[in-house]
Amino acid sequence: MEKLYVVKIGGNVIDDPDSLNTFLSDFAQIPSPKILVHGGGKMASGLAKRMGVSQAMVNGRRITDQETLKIAVMVYSGQLNKQIVSGLQARNVNALGLSGADLNLIRAKKRLVTDIDYGFAGDLAHDSVNVAVLQTLLNTAVVPVFSAITHDGKGQLLNTNADTIASAIAAAMSGSFDVQLNYCFEKRGVLLDPADDSSVIVKMNKTKYSELSREGIISKGMIPKLENAFDAIGKGVGKVIIGHSGELINMMEDEFTGTSLVG
Amino acid sequence: MEKLYVVKIGGNVIDDPDSLNTFLSDFAQIPSPKILVHGGGKMASGLAKRMGVSQAMVNGRRITDQETLKIAVMVYSGQLNKQIVSGLQARNVNALGLSGADLNLIRAKKRLVTDIDYGFAGDLAHDSVNVAVLQTLLNTAVVPVFSAITHDGKGQLLNTNADTIASAIAAAMSGSFDVQLNYCFEKRGVLLDPADDSSVIVKMNKTKYSELSREGIISKGMIPKLENAFDAIGKGVGKVIIGHSGELINMMEDEFTGTSLVG
Repeated sequence: MEKLYVVKIGGNVIDDPDSLNTFLSDFAQIPSPKILVHGGGKMASGLAKRMGVSQAMVNGRRITDQETLKIAVMVYSGQLNKQIVSGLQARNVNALGLSGADLNLIRAKKRLVTDIDYGFAGDLAHDSVNVAVLQTLLNTAVVPVFSAITHDGKGQLLNTNADTIASAIAAAMSGSFDVQLNYCFEKRGVLLDPADDSSVIVKMNKTKYSELSREGIISKGMIPKLENAFDAIGKGVGKVIIGHSGELINMMEDEFTGTSLVG
Repeated sequence: MEKLYVVKIGGNVIDDPDSLNTFLSDFAQIPSPKILVHGGGKMASGLAKRMGVSQAMVNGRRITDQETLKIAVMVYSGQLNKQIVSGLQARNVNALGLSGADLNLIRAKKRLVTDIDYGFAGDLAHDSVNVAVLQTLLNTAVVPVFSAITHDGKGQLLNTNADTIASAIAAAMSGSFDVQLNYCFEKRGVLLDPADDSSVIVKMNKTKYSELSREGIISKGMIPKLENAFDAIGKGVGKVIIGHSGELINMMEDEFTGTSLVG
């Protein structure tokens, strides 16, 4: 099967123009077909603060009320998505910026209200990604660039975790491609000790992950990312890599110094 | 040649959810192929005010400084574009939201600084619109939805007048389609007396336009729209119509009560 790279970029990298530019130059170099998914959390918080919108948090998770959704759509699908697309076009990558609403590419369900109402948060199902349309785009040498905004198909935009979107896209495309999913951020990989950048776990399978997370060794912030990563592997993605955004090129080679996840 | 509708929606219609929804339902009904271009001026001003960003104006034209550009991108390509796309998807229209940077569809030139520096304002040339790619999208039954953001091909986003974008797209596509360009806003058409909604000029050619504008009868605000309209006609667009957004369906019929422009 043909190789497909699904790359997620997030964390501080997005807030720093130099890091983002370096990343985009590296991304331009990796072979097509490829798909980019980006987050952008801190910029949205910055805009919310400037607009005087308070960010409701419950158990460390942001509640997406009407105003917060509007800000997320403006920052993710507007400012950041178009900045990345124009930056890639300048590097001769035929980028197409997308939310899940565009071409009905990712249809989500508004999260059910239980004890917590997360507001306009969108959860994905096994059939959320429109594989046929995405494949048509890749066949015409388009490079899709996804922001973390989805829709419910009834006119409501929804805020969806970018790691989850990357995982769902990778899983959905694994029927037709040999997919490698790269999570790029500001850390060297999954660390045994969050304070020690050299404590990278080089290889991890699901058993080791369960062990380390049971022992409380894996930091809380990494758990959703790893859950998404192993979810992708469970659904047929060949390889998931977690590492520094500056190492994107190395992620395709054996010299890579970050974390490789295997089934 | 096959008929292609290029529809521009702007003015107060965009700020009012009910008017926008009615318009989207009507737009969903008109036959494909079709292209939507939207403005969104007042929302951007509202956000600028809320963020404490002052809007520099020279001779009634907005100066697009760095902050104003960021706001325009967030509001036009983010909030508004995605709201319209999800609204059309809910109406079974396979909408794809686009800036000029996406797929390199509209490449503009930053306006030259003469006595006034307009900042990040993008001007279009005769070859700005990527006709081949746009045609491919239309051939696959995609409905492009353009925000008024373009790029220079070197990584810089630019703010471009939405009427001008609609005119340039209509003109560029007139080689392969029988194009009808509809400008939809909150007025019934071009008025002889801006205060009298019943004073619609039903039909106007370039000669009559020159006459009326020389006599100062056509209001200042209408002149750029009409220049764009006659520019499109001069470049091969068969029909340009200016009228109320609620009359979109009628614009395809003889009962239309707005203004029809002819060559």
